[in-house]
Formats: sequence, structure tokens, C-alpha cells
Amino acid sequence: MELYTLLQQHFDEMVDLRRYLHENPELSHEEVETPKFITEYHEALGHEVRKNVGGRGVVATLKGGKPGKTVALRADFDALAISEQTNLSFASKIPGRMHACGHDGHTATLLVLAKVFNQLQADIEGTIIFIHQHAEEIAPGGAIAMIEDGCLDGVDAIYGTHLWAPEPLGNLLVTGGPIMAAADGFYIRINGKGGHGSEPQLTKDSILIGAQFVTNLQQIVSRRINPLRPAVVSIAHFEALNPFNVIADSVYIKGTSRMFDAQTRDLIEADIEAVLRAACDFYGATYTYDYIRGYPPVVNHQQHADAIYKLAQDVPGITNAIICEPTMGGEDFAYYLEKVPGAFFFTGAKNPQWTEVYPHHHPKFDIDERAMLTAANTLGAAALQFLSVKETVHTK
Amino acid sequence: MELYTLLQQHFDEMVDLRRYLHENPELSHEEVETPKFITEYHEALGHEVRKNVGGRGVVATLKGGKPGKTVALRADFDALAISEQTNLSFASKIPGRMHACGHDGHTATLLVLAKVFNQLQADIEGTIIFIHQHAEEIAPGGAIAMIEDGCLDGVDAIYGTHLWAPEPLGNLLVTGGPIMAAADGFYIRINGKGGHGSEPQLTKDSILIGAQFVTNLQQIVSRRINPLRPAVVSIAHFEALNPFNVIADSVYIKGTSRMFDAQTRDLIEADIEAVLRAACDFYGATYTYDYIRGYPPVVNHQQHADAIYKLAQDVPGITNAIICEPTMGGEDFAYYLEKVPGAFFFTGAKNPQWTEVYPHHHPKFDIDERAMLTAANTLGAAALQFLSVKETVHTK
Amino acid sequence: MELYTLLQQHFDEMVDLRRYLHENPELSHEEVETPKFITEYHEALGHEVRKNVGGRGVVATLKGGKPGKTVALRADFDALAISEQTNLSFASKIPGRMHACGHDGHTATLLVLAKVFNQLQADIEGTIIFIHQHAEEIAPGGAIAMIEDGCLDGVDAIYGTHLWAPEPLGNLLVTGGPIMAAADGFYIRINGKGGHGSEPQLTKDSILIGAQFVTNLQQIVSRRINPLRPAVVSIAHFEALNPFNVIADSVYIKGTSRMFDAQTRDLIEADIEAVLRAACDFYGATYTYDYIRGYPPVVNHQQHADAIYKLAQDVPGITNAIICEPTMGGEDFAYYLEKVPGAFFFTGAKNPQWTEVYPHHHPKFDIDERAMLTAANTLGAAALQFLSVKETVHTK
Amino acid sequence: MELYTLLQQHFDEMVDLRRYLHENPELSHEEVETPKFITEYHEALGHEVRKNVGGRGVVATLKGGKPGKTVALRADFDALAISEQTNLSFASKIPGRMHACGHDGHTATLLVLAKVFNQLQADIEGTIIFIHQHAEEIAPGGAIAMIEDGCLDGVDAIYGTHLWAPEPLGNLLVTGGPIMAAADGFYIRINGKGGHGSEPQLTKDSILIGAQFVTNLQQIVSRRINPLRPAVVSIAHFEALNPFNVIADSVYIKGTSRMFDAQTRDLIEADIEAVLRAACDFYGATYTYDYIRGYPPVVNHQQHADAIYKLAQDVPGITNAIICEPTMGGEDFAYYLEKVPGAFFFTGAKNPQWTEVYPHHHPKFDIDERAMLTAANTLGAAALQFLSVKETVHTK
Repeated sequence: MELYTLLQQHFDEMVDLRRYLHENPELSHEEVETPKFITEYHEALGHEVRKNVGGRGVVATLKGGKPGKTVALRADFDALAISEQTNLSFASKIPGRMHACGHDGHTATLLVLAKVFNQLQADIEGTIIFIHQHAEEIAPGGAIAMIEDGCLDGVDAIYGTHLWAPEPLGNLLVTGGPIMAAADGFYIRINGKGGHGSEPQLTKDSILIGAQFVTNLQQIVSRRINPLRPAVVSIAHFEALNPFNVIADSVYIKGTSRMFDAQTRDLIEADIEAVLRAACDFYGATYTYDYIRGYPPVVNHQQHADAIYKLAQDVPGITNAIICEPTMGGEDFAYYLEKVPGAFFFTGAKNPQWTEVYPHHHPKFDIDERAMLTAANTLGAAALQFLSVKETVHTK
Repeated sequence: MELYTLLQQHFDEMVDLRRYLHENPELSHEEVETPKFITEYHEALGHEVRKNVGGRGVVATLKGGKPGKTVALRADFDALAISEQTNLSFASKIPGRMHACGHDGHTATLLVLAKVFNQLQADIEGTIIFIHQHAEEIAPGGAIAMIEDGCLDGVDAIYGTHLWAPEPLGNLLVTGGPIMAAADGFYIRINGKGGHGSEPQLTKDSILIGAQFVTNLQQIVSRRINPLRPAVVSIAHFEALNPFNVIADSVYIKGTSRMFDAQTRDLIEADIEAVLRAACDFYGATYTYDYIRGYPPVVNHQQHADAIYKLAQDVPGITNAIICEPTMGGEDFAYYLEKVPGAFFFTGAKNPQWTEVYPHHHPKFDIDERAMLTAANTLGAAALQFLSVKETVHTK
Repeated sequence: MELYTLLQQHFDEMVDLRRYLHENPELSHEEVETPKFITEYHEALGHEVRKNVGGRGVVATLKGGKPGKTVALRADFDALAISEQTNLSFASKIPGRMHACGHDGHTATLLVLAKVFNQLQADIEGTIIFIHQHAEEIAPGGAIAMIEDGCLDGVDAIYGTHLWAPEPLGNLLVTGGPIMAAADGFYIRINGKGGHGSEPQLTKDSILIGAQFVTNLQQIVSRRINPLRPAVVSIAHFEALNPFNVIADSVYIKGTSRMFDAQTRDLIEADIEAVLRAACDFYGATYTYDYIRGYPPVVNHQQHADAIYKLAQDVPGITNAIICEPTMGGEDFAYYLEKVPGAFFFTGAKNPQWTEVYPHHHPKFDIDERAMLTAANTLGAAALQFLSVKETVHTK
Repeated sequence: MELYTLLQQHFDEMVDLRRYLHENPELSHEEVETPKFITEYHEALGHEVRKNVGGRGVVATLKGGKPGKTVALRADFDALAISEQTNLSFASKIPGRMHACGHDGHTATLLVLAKVFNQLQADIEGTIIFIHQHAEEIAPGGAIAMIEDGCLDGVDAIYGTHLWAPEPLGNLLVTGGPIMAAADGFYIRINGKGGHGSEPQLTKDSILIGAQFVTNLQQIVSRRINPLRPAVVSIAHFEALNPFNVIADSVYIKGTSRMFDAQTRDLIEADIEAVLRAACDFYGATYTYDYIRGYPPVVNHQQHADAIYKLAQDVPGITNAIICEPTMGGEDFAYYLEKVPGAFFFTGAKNPQWTEVYPHHHPKFDIDERAMLTAANTLGAAALQFLSVKETVHTK
């Protein structure tokens, strides 16, 4: 396929773009130079570009030479508040900022793919929308704002991928139905009654209340949820900072929960509070409880997932197309799939020589850059195939 | 007794001194102006003064007009890192510093008592040593250093008191044997393995380990210690600060333990680690554990406690002399009583009109200043009585 | 289909047989009259019958009029040690014994189906084996012994069903892959040190150790197992029987665990002991731990499950064929499917008028008897279809 | 003293009596032969005897030759439902019954002491009451019924002792104030919702609720009670008996609590329920809770305890009179001391050659019989001394 040949020829540029972006990371909702860079890149190609979509997003449009449907491809471009600890020659130039989740690679992939599509423009049947999304890392995320700002208007299908460091280069993972989980957060303050460490009987020991809460919280997943419904409830933060001889007046607790279905979500939200209430009641302590629903689950449309799975058999660079299990991680790509059909997939990005892989969001995170080429091939092929099929029935 | 009359006459000065000190608090081991002030006060009386005893302590000596034994009286003078929230006209002038434990009153009491003894000098049989101690609030405390620096050399007995806000003015509390507890600290780090909140199975959840540690810690006091041996184990600090979706790599925990006997102390030190080890072992987590023994228990010598109790019946201002229970609080007066006979007692300092009493170390802590006069009367009478008895057998 | 017509004509007999069996329940491994009854029924039809297969099982063979493959159908026939609390006219005649899991219905279904097949004998291409299994309720179960005793010799495929009270009459549930879980048991004794209730410090409180074990056990499912791998760990029995003022010397604990995959099974077996060890270690208590692997998961062969699902569309009585989720319950039908291809399915047996459904093993358990006809239709159709297909490739 | 000489002469009879009683133990509230035997013994001495006092108690009266006050001495005589495992030649003849707490010795001591007092009758100034009490082992105990039935009428003081196996022969232990604790019992049923072990989400897991209750119960003693107030809360019984694959519908729990003061008793009674309620609330489980107050603390009257301590210096057989700590055990002697002044003390009964001592209520329990002589000497001397002092002011 000509697409693959052209992408291969532009692989070096893809690498250069990714490294430039990697050196210049910008935090969610603080992106300035990155969307400017993306805008200029598309404008240089002659694409129609909308800036500041839903805040800081960029949407570029390529109208093909022939009439047809409209397909969107999405890449996110925000970075994280992490101090890079790699020894890469193109490591972040900005202290405390790092592209530690591969969004630099997503953007480089989509930009070069846009350039190649531009070269193929005459033969394209329909329209291709390039959605460059800001702020994927922080809920409520950029997707929902960009959708409200019209980025999906007229779109018939959407595809996206995540470069995925835990999976070897050459693997492509996709599945119909849920592929990523709903990701919620909760925030708790337990208000006991402080006092001197030598007189517990005069206090309401909020650290002990918190400890019992965390210990007893485990029963939500182990006892209360249908074992066939995957669910996670994790405590991330426990804060009660006092001199060694003071019983804490209050503790502050944060955590996250993950699940794939609405019933489990409701039960977890209610049960966390029920465990909390029981822990507080013995002492007559009070609490505040905020449960913030984050991204919904990413639910692939079966026929689009099937389509990705099938075409992946022939994509250069893919040695292993896998019907995968879902992950408990979250992604605001979920919102796009609530609006239009499509699919999200994982592109293996682990260099086969690496003996250790640093997870996403780790200060030593890295990808095998060849995964970008695989991702571009797959996204590109998926878009062209979608546009080429005349009688697709769109079901959400 | 002439002592009482003279002290009553100097009560206003006592108040002035206390208020001056209250306005000018200095932290433990940072005392500069306070020991200078004390030194000058004694020098003005013509007392022999040693400065920088054991660091920042001051020891003044009054030789009586007649030969005899030597008795020491001790007052501490350090303040706390607390922002005062009283509306007193003489509130602390220094932000974040406060005399919130009454040491200003102790010092004013002892200075004025010294002035009155100076007036009675001709009739005093023996020598009176005024030990003004720095750094009582932070273990290892000033007492041990002052003792090593000779402050007890030649001393036959020692007395001290604490102005005690929870007890009404007019009450004096003393007992033979233990009156205050040993006060230890412990410092723990649990090293689990962090990770993403959605993948607990890849982590060693150090917050959960810590929570189980705190929960199961309760069994030390409830199950392992002889119920007739008072003991407290309190957790004060639990620190694991992370974004809401991160499982903690480690937690830091601090706490305090209190007891009166060596066997219980050994058991608590060993058992805290045993609970910790059990909590860590399931996950194969590691830990560090530092148990720092603080002040030993304050153990009054029976005959000196009895002496205080008896003379208190006749001390002006005391309406209620009480053989008290010990408290679980700690005091480095313990070290003096390990070296020489003597007694420590509590002087009630709660104003009878107050409907609410703020505990020691509270930002709204205050005392009824009349308690200083009661304290001076009692300390003075105890010293004179001790010196007047010819054949006292000193037993430690 | 003639099969359906004939079965419909014999429905009354099916009901009579089921009620007779229901009145005369026999416990696992104590079945005497039931296998005798089954044997005589088949002998009356002229079937070749093997008795005492693998203990108390009965295997009857019907050779069709035409050559072909061999298919087996299985029904279990043991009852439970439960005192029936229904008001049925045909309630158990034997105190403390009850057919509370529907095995009476399974047997009636298979007997009548055998009679109908007998009538259709001339047209049957191949051989039908009727496996009447004893002792399904108690691991290791009758299946494994019957297999060792040759009940599957020459069998090309096997089918079985469970009448399923929680599902409405008219529903048929089947799925490829795991449909029922592995079901293990574990047996624990914690040996502490008993003593008088007033002196905990001289004991090793085995009830407290056991309580901490049960509390902390929850983290296996909540933290240690991949949330995408269904798993259950339940404590069923906690026994420490003492006068009110005695601290228990030991406790005895039993429980069950469920899962679908080998890795999770290994992890659960090891982790239960790890939690137990941690709970015991603090006190220096000892334990014994026996983990008994029970039935493996029931894993349907995809093409046989698909076949059931498809033919169910046309089976009289089935209004709703469902690709179901697996259940966490266990079945020793698992062993048959480890040896030969086939499928196990659930036949909805809840009367649509019932407002309350009593679960299997409940003293008030009952089924809508019409479900037996549905089950016979489906099993019969599945057997005939399997025999009629010439070129089936058998994969396990 | 003539008393001591006479008792020494009757030591063999004391041994014989004790061994006869040891061979013929009778349970609390089932005593028939024992009170008959006691009655006949006193009648043979010519003492006035009341039978069936408060049920099965026996009260004998010896009027001295001279007028004076009235003193009572008490011994209990019930045995335990324990199967004796000693190899004593005079081991229990009755299977499942044993004098495993020394009450046989108490009775033998008091009978022989009565005989000796009878011989000294002419010189005795006042009246001696011998209270032989039934049913000490089971609350509410025999004491309260005997008191209601008049056994203390006219009594000015009372003494009693317990032969005490943990303490060496020659030790006598007594203290003013509390010497034995209040001993309460509590009885709990947690009603969850049972179900199949594979479906925890449909149940309310009452074993887990019970386990959390037991785990969290520890905080009552560790956090809620003033550390200077001795207290114990122990769980003795945890019962949930089910097949391995059933989640328990309910659990039954029993335990005991001990303390010395009313405030702590109230707090414990309320707090056990508060912990229970919190454990049940998360699941919406229900419970029943019965807290039965048992014997109050045994509180010695200071001057009587002092009197025992002083006279013990000269009692033959006592080498070591000790002001002891209280024990957490309970005794219904408490009720006598609520009515009249007096004291209860422990008489060391451990043979110096024994390397292992079996605790009271143990199947191998035994005493050094010489302790009976020590006990008789002390009780006898205490009674005579009390009668001999003319102007005792009785304060309760």
C-alpha cells in the first residue's frame, strides 16, 4: 500500500518531531507552544485549521479528492509534572515537566500521517479530520470540551491509539466492547478530635479511624461486587502530619476507583461512604466525602474493533494482532466513542532489547520510536478502509 | 510563716515577670534572652551564678546564714513553636512562638522565691540552689546535660512543680512513686512498591500495610500488656502524599508510647516492631524502625512526697491537697530524681470562673496567675522544711 | 421435530418420576434406591446397563439403528443433608434429606429422554450413552470415578444441563469457554495459647488471630489478583467454643475459593497461607493449613456451545437463548469436558408467577417442572444434531 | 498462740477432709452431699447450723464464752465441670467433675478451724459465724442469695481467703482497696444473610462482620479507657458452623470484661455495642447484645487489709507477707464486702518443688496442702484479733 511506503519514507521526520516535542513538554491546560507548532505544521500543508477548540485543542481538516464520508483521527499532546530521569539526548529541557506518557509520539505520528494523507489527497474518498487534543491527563480532560466545541461535527467514525510501553513492538491490541475502565477519584476528610498522645481516651483518634477505613475498604471489592465485574478501589494519599506526641485532629485521604459498568460504579460510590461512616461512627467522628466521576469507560464499537483487528494482519510492523483484555486505566477517548462509532487500540512500544520497562508516568519512561510508524500505518489504513467502504451501517 | 507573707507582698512582681517572659518566648535550645534575663536577676540579688550550664541553663546559689544541707529548686524556661491565639494583653510578640506550657510562670515563681529567700538569708540553715533549666520540651532535654555539667553537685534534695491548667486553683497534687510516665517516640518507614492506582496487583500497597499496622497495633495495649501496667501506644503521624491515582511507594509513620515500668517498655518496643513485621511480611515489604527512648518516668521519693503532702495542708492558697494518680505525660525532672531524693508536684492553675480549659500546648492555653504564688509558697516551704530537719536519712 | 412431540407426550411421566425421586432423596455416596430405580427403568427399556460405575453411578447405552458417532448425556442424582421446608405434596419423606438442587429433575429428564430416544431408535445414527452420576455435591465427586471406570470410553461428545432456579422458565444460558468456576476448599487450625479471660497477656489469643486473618484476607481479592480475573475467597466456618471467660486455645476455620484460571488459583492458595502466617507470627502462634483443590472450572468447547446456542432458537419452550456470563459456582461436569468435547448449559426453571425465588440448597428450593421438558428438548436435539453431522472435527 | 498449736495438731484431719471432698466434687447449684457433710460436721461440734441458706449454703454459729462482736469467716464449696487429669490417689471419683479451684481446701480449712475455735470457745469474746457458700463459680453466685437470706445479719466484719496456686507456699498477699476485679459477660448474635460461598455479593457475610468486630474491639482498651484504669475485654467464643462453601447467616460470640471502677464498666458496656453496631452497619446486618454484669470488684477495707498484713508477720507458715497488686479475676466475696467491713487475701499454695504450676481451672490443678494450715492460721488469727479489739470504728 502506498500509504505504508510513504510513511516509511517519512519515519525520520516523525522521530525528529517527537524529539522536538519531547524536549518541550507542556502541562495540561497550559499548552501554548505545542498547539502553535501543530497549527503551523498543518497550515504549511494547506489544511484548514481551527485553533483553541474547546480551550487549547487544534482541529485540522483534509478534504479528499473524491466525495465520501468523514473520519476523525485523534492524538493528545499534553505532558506531565514529572522530572525526567532518562539520559536521552533529547530529554526534557524544562525541569519538572516530561512527556512521560507518549503523547509526544502520538502527536508526531498524527502530524506525519497528515502530511502523507496530504500527498495522497487526490485519491481519498471523503474527509479526514485530525483532532489534536489538549489536556488528556487531567479530568474532565480536553475531549469533552472539544466535542462541545464541535470537533466531531459531521464525523462518521473515529480512531485513536496509545503507544503502549508494556507491550512489545510489533503487538497490536484491540477488543470490542470495553477496552479501558471508568476512572473516578474520591476525597475524604475524617474529623476526629486531636489531643496529647498520652491521653487517647480524651480524643477521637482520626488516624486509627482512617486506618480502619482503609483496612475495611477491601471488602467492597472482595465481598460486595459481583466477582465477574472487574473493579478496583485504591487509596493513594493518607495525610496526618503531626509531632510524634500528638493525636491527629483530622486526616485527609484520596483515592481512585475503576470499573466498567454503571451498577458497580454506583455501588462503589455508595459503599466507600458506608465503610467510612461505620469507621467514624464508633468515635462519633464526622467526615466529608467527595466522589468525583472521571472519564467513563472506553467502549469500542464491535465492528470497528473487528475492522482494526483484521487489517492489522497486513500492516507492516505488526507481528501479533491480539484480541486483548481491557485495562483498568482510563482515557477521555471514551467521550468520542459515546458520540460516534470507532475504536481505540494499543500499539506495542517496548524495544525488544530492553530488559526493564518503565511504566507510563515513570521518570524513566521511554518508547521504541518505531512504534510510531506502526501506529501511523494502522490509523492510516483504518481511516482509508473506513472511507472506502460504501455501505457501512453506522451503529453506535 | 514569714516566707508566705513576703511572697504575697511580691506577687505583683511575679505577675510582671511572668508577663514579660510570656511576651518573649524562646524555643528549646534557642534560648538567649531568657537565660540572660534570669542571670541578671540573680546577679542583681548578689547570688553566685553559673551560666551556660549544660548548654543554656542557669544555676544560681544562695548560701544561708547558717550551716546545713543543700536543697535545689528547679524551673524550666523554654517555650513552644505554637502561634498564640489568646487575646491576652501580654500575648507573645513573636509569631509562631508561645509559652503554652506555663514555663514562664515556673520561672517567675522561682525568681521571686529566690528574691524572698535572699531577704531571709540570715536565718536559712544551709544552701539553696536555683536550677533554671532550658529545653524541657524536646528530648533528650536540658536536665540531663545540666546534671552532667554539675548542677546537682552537693545537692541533698530537689523539688519542682508544674503549674497545671486542668486542675482548679487551690488543688495541689502529689504522690509517692511514679507521678509521670516514661515518654518514648518511634519512627517508621514502610517501603512497599508503588504503581498505578488501577493495577494494585503489581504493587505492594504501603498505605494498606500501614493501615493494617495501625489497626493491629491496638492489640499491644489490649492483649499483650498486663492490664495493671498502664501503657499507651499512639500513632501521631501518617504520611503518604500522592496524586489520587497512584499507589504509594512508602509511608512514614511516627508515634509515642508511655509506660511506668521497664518490662512494659521493653515489650512495647519489641511488639511495635512485631506488628510492623507481620503487616509487611504478607507483601514482602520492608521497613525501618527507630524507637527512641525519651524521658524516664518521674518517680517521687516517698518521704519527700509525703512531706509535700503534709506541709501543703498549711500552705496559703491550697484548699485541697490530693494524693494523685500519675499522669501519662513525661517530664525530664525524672533525671534529677534518678540522682537525688526529692519530689515533683502539680499546682492547680485553673481559674474557677473558666468554663472551658485549654490543655497545655494549646494555642489558647492560659493559667490563673495566682497559682504561681501557691507554687512559690509550697516550693519555699518544702525547701525550708528540708533544711530545718537535722537527721534526714537520704534514700534515693 | 418428532423428538419434541414425543417428549411433550411424556411430560406427565417426567413429572411423576421427578416427584417420586423428590420424595426419596439419598445423600452423596449413600445412594442405593435411586441407582436401583434408574437401572430398572433402563432395563425395562431394554438398554444395556452398567451398575456401580465408579461407585454408585449407572451407565445405560442405546445403540441407534444406524452406524455413527457416540454422544453422552449426563444427569446427576444425589440429594443434600437439608430439612425440607416446602409445603409440596411430594416433599421429602426423609427427615434431614432433600433434593434441594434439582438433581431429581435432572434424572427424570434424562430417563424420559431415554424412553423417547428408545422409541426413535431405528432412525438414530450412532450410539447414545446415558450417564447417571452419583455424588455431584461432594468433591471429589462421582464424575472422576465414573470416568476412571470407563463411562466416557468411545464417547465423542457430551452434553449436560442444570435446571436453574434463578433464571426464568424459557431462558437458556450457555457460553463458550468457562461457564462455571473452579471450586476449592481450605481448612485451617490456628493454635494459640489459651488461658483465663482476665489475663490476655499470658495467652496467644487465637480468636483475635483468626479475626485478623479473616479481616486481612479480603486484600487477596481486592489487591493481589488482577481485577480482570474473577475470584472469590469466602470463609464459611469459624469455630472456637468456650465458656465466656476463657481465651481460646485454638480456632478452626473453613472456607472456599473460586476462580477460572490456574495462575489465580496458585496465587490464592499461596496468599491465604501468607495472610495466615502474618496473623500468627505476631503472637508466635502456629497453624495447620490444608488447601484442597476441588472441581476444575467447567470449560465449554466453543463449537459445542455455539451449537447449543443456535439450536436453542428453535427448541419449544425456549423464548430466550442467552450467551451468558460464567457463574462462580462449581460442577464436576468439568471433568467430562476435560476428556471429551461438549458443553454444559443452564435451563431456566423459575416459575414466572413466583415473586420470591429460593436459591439452590435452600430448604424452600423448588423448580417449575416445565423446565424439565425444555431441558429434555435441548439435550435431545443437541445429541441428535451431533450424531447427524458427519464431518465434525473434534477439538478439545 | 494456742490457736496455731491446735491447728497444727489437726493438720492431718484437714488433709483428710480435703481429700474426701476432692474425691466427691459437686457442681454449682447441684451441691447435695457437700452441704450435708458440712452440716453434720458442725452439728457434731454442737454448733447452731442453718441449712439451705440462699439455696444450698450452710451457716454455722459458735458463740464464744465472753460477750463481744461478731466476725464471719467464709469458705466456698462448689466444684467445676472439668475432667480431672491428675494422678492423685484421691482424684475425683466423678467423671467430668473436679475441684479444680481449691474450694475443697477452703472448706477443709474452715471446718477444722471451726473445730479448733470450738475448743477455744471459753476464751472467745463474741461470736464467730462460719459461712459455707455454694455456687461461687457461676454468676450471680451463692453469696448474694446467702446475704439476702440473712447470713450477714449481725456480722461486724468478715474475712476470706483463696488458696492460690500461682504463688509459692509461704506467701500471703493482701492489699487495701480493690484486690479482685469486676467480672462481666457479654453475649452477641450477629445476623447477616447467608448464601453460597461463591456469591458473596448476595450475602451479608456475618463471619467477616464478626471478625471486624473482634479486630476493632481492641481499641476500647487501647484508646477509649483511661490507661490508669485497668480493664480487659476478651472474646472467648466465636461460633459459625457451616459447610465449607456456605457463607454464614449468623455468628454467636461470647466474651468477658474486667475492670475495677463503675465509669469504666459503663464505658465498656456501651463501647462493645458501639463497635458491634459499626461493624454491622456497613452491611445492614442486625445484632442482639446482652451484657450481663457479674460480680463487682472485691474491695478490701483498708484497716482490715492492714490488719491482715500486720498479723501475717507472725503467722506460722508465712515467710513473705506482700502488699499485692489486684488481679483481674473475679470473686463473689465482693458482695460480702459491700455489706460489712473486712478483707480477702490470697494464700500461696505452690509447692516449692513444683517446676510447673497448673493454673486454677486446669485439669491438672493441685495445691500444696500445707497452704490450708497457713490459711487457717491467718483466718483464725484475724478473727480473734478483730474480736479482741474493743473500740474498732467500723467504716465500710
